[in-house]
Amino acid sequence: MENDNVRIEAEALITFCQCVFQTLGLSEEDAHSAADVLVTADVRGIESHGVARLQRYINGLEAGTMRANAAVEIVMDTPSSLVIDAHGAMGAPVSVKTMRRVITKARKHGAAFGCVRDSNHFGIAGYYAMMALDEDMLGIAMTNTAALGVPTFGRQVMFGTNPLAFAAPADKEQAFVLDMATTVVARGKIEVYERRGKELPTGWAVDKQGLTAKNARVLLDEMFQRVGGGILPLGGEGELLSGYKGYGLAVMVDILCAVLCGAPFGADVVDTATSSGRVSHFFGAIRIAAFRDPQEFRRDMDRLLRNLRHSPVAEGAERVYFAGQKEFEHEAQCRELGIPLPRQTYRQLCRIGHAFNVVPPDILEPIPNK
Amino acid sequence: MENDNVRIEAEALITFCQCVFQTLGLSEEDAHSAADVLVTADVRGIESHGVARLQRYINGLEAGTMRANAAVEIVMDTPSSLVIDAHGAMGAPVSVKTMRRVITKARKHGAAFGCVRDSNHFGIAGYYAMMALDEDMLGIAMTNTAALGVPTFGRQVMFGTNPLAFAAPADKEQAFVLDMATTVVARGKIEVYERRGKELPTGWAVDKQGLTAKNARVLLDEMFQRVGGGILPLGGEGELLSGYKGYGLAVMVDILCAVLCGAPFGADVVDTATSSGRVSHFFGAIRIAAFRDPQEFRRDMDRLLRNLRHSPVAEGAERVYFAGQKEFEHEAQCRELGIPLPRQTYRQLCRIGHAFNVVPPDILEPIPNK
Repeated sequence: MENDNVRIEAEALITFCQCVFQTLGLSEEDAHSAADVLVTADVRGIESHGVARLQRYINGLEAGTMRANAAVEIVMDTPSSLVIDAHGAMGAPVSVKTMRRVITKARKHGAAFGCVRDSNHFGIAGYYAMMALDEDMLGIAMTNTAALGVPTFGRQVMFGTNPLAFAAPADKEQAFVLDMATTVVARGKIEVYERRGKELPTGWAVDKQGLTAKNARVLLDEMFQRVGGGILPLGGEGELLSGYKGYGLAVMVDILCAVLCGAPFGADVVDTATSSGRVSHFFGAIRIAAFRDPQEFRRDMDRLLRNLRHSPVAEGAERVYFAGQKEFEHEAQCRELGIPLPRQTYRQLCRIGHAFNVVPPDILEPIPNK
Repeated sequence: MENDNVRIEAEALITFCQCVFQTLGLSEEDAHSAADVLVTADVRGIESHGVARLQRYINGLEAGTMRANAAVEIVMDTPSSLVIDAHGAMGAPVSVKTMRRVITKARKHGAAFGCVRDSNHFGIAGYYAMMALDEDMLGIAMTNTAALGVPTFGRQVMFGTNPLAFAAPADKEQAFVLDMATTVVARGKIEVYERRGKELPTGWAVDKQGLTAKNARVLLDEMFQRVGGGILPLGGEGELLSGYKGYGLAVMVDILCAVLCGAPFGADVVDTATSSGRVSHFFGAIRIAAFRDPQEFRRDMDRLLRNLRHSPVAEGAERVYFAGQKEFEHEAQCRELGIPLPRQTYRQLCRIGHAFNVVPPDILEPIPNK
């Protein structure tokens, strides 16, 4: 029974997280945003960014590295642009507010962009890009992260996993939602290999000499201490599989998130032993009606997405997916059956509930783990 | 002497190409744009998109698949957006004009975007993104192409090599210029392996069963006849190295270029035996001053780019580059010594000159090939 899952209703989980965040000093609105972003990750099957992270946010808020009541400041405000200084606020609430403002500007002016600096981990980038979907807009979200990525031919971390998200609405089909780290993998996957004592696949990371890294434990240690080594950009090692493209994309994200608003970038973004580093974000919205009738756009998107998911399958493979499809299918299942959480994660939530005097959410149904 | 290079002055090469294009019915302005885009590719060391392609453009113009005097139409025009129907025009001239208009709009409104549909091969995407650099803007350019790319777990081409370009200006350093196909490689690299009879590297392409393709000749044949097989997205085969990320980026480019303006997308974009297929493009410009002082931005860009190119080098490697750096170095050398062209390419230009009664450019200096 140690490894099985429990199922929890999404709304109950949001309420629980929200109450915990309010206890830590967040306003009702901010606490709700933070909880919704967190639980949406679980609902979409992106466990690494879900409620399993709640304790980390609590640590940040208790240590003051994330500030519950930071006086978020508007540094720049034009009809099509926005620069926000979060002054160390939690990432999710300030990001939700910024994306809302960006959408409002885009509704009037066709396209708008906003940067947030001096912020913290904002959860899944896709959440903010998807805020544009019901507005007949294309949504864009990016963030830089603590430096974990090594440039092509390099051996020191010079940029983060720097995810970018892009969302476009469809009509009868689900939306297209790309949400990807620009490194081959994020740190979480390296940690999984460390825990299992497995050798790392070629093309994921290099060691302090800049050569293929095999040992996850050594890599994580030396990367954290900045001795050398790190995760490779999308496209892997050297030039054969075009690793310089992922490297370029990672730097592009850094330019849009950080250089564009005067925030720290590259190797200057650092996690410490006790907390995540301050990061910055970039949000964008483009109004479809500025280009064509949104309903016609949505119908063409249906055709595009249908063509992709019906396209012939490789021998030995099961299905062709479009970006976001798996996550929408996971979401549909969660809405029906509840969110599956490892019992270990649920126990952690119960401990948190006990500590903060918040009643943990009920278990809907225990199901055996795969 | 068959394989050596000759060097030609850039200006002379532009004039030559321009005269040829004018003979084929292009206006002086359009012919100059087309010639400048072509020669800029050679100047930046992207030979595959340079004057070696001149004959292909001539073929297109003579066959009428590229129309020298197409009545380019403005379909949509708002303060921040533009949709152009090129009605089969050459790609480069209409793209130059569209990017200019997008820049003018961004100067006023902070950010602007334009789509061009029913266009033709536009050369290097980076050319248009770089037009923003002197304007204190970030530049964006993308195009879809004939379908050559296979989705993760698929075995049929469903999208093009769909390049995207992003340019950001610096102060003393050169600019950051990312210009990349979103597939692992473009078709040209497969053709090189075909000519040399070399086995394809794992992670570049799959065959008609969706399994690793080894034989370049068979791949090109079966891909062209749409029997099956094609080039893999950035990140390669399956999920281990995150091929779904490149796949997602390729579809994102298709959405921005084609779905956003009602143009054909995905497998509907087809090259024929005699000509390239009609494609569509996406251009964007974002004014830096809408976010922060452009001079401060440029100074931070200097720091970013310097950090990258000075970052420690992997054992056995020579240098770490930032995106565009190699191309700027090639450019500096070309400005000094002239553009290196294979003698075979130069002979082809002479034949073209003879056919169109245009004097070919002089050879500056013969140099031995590497």
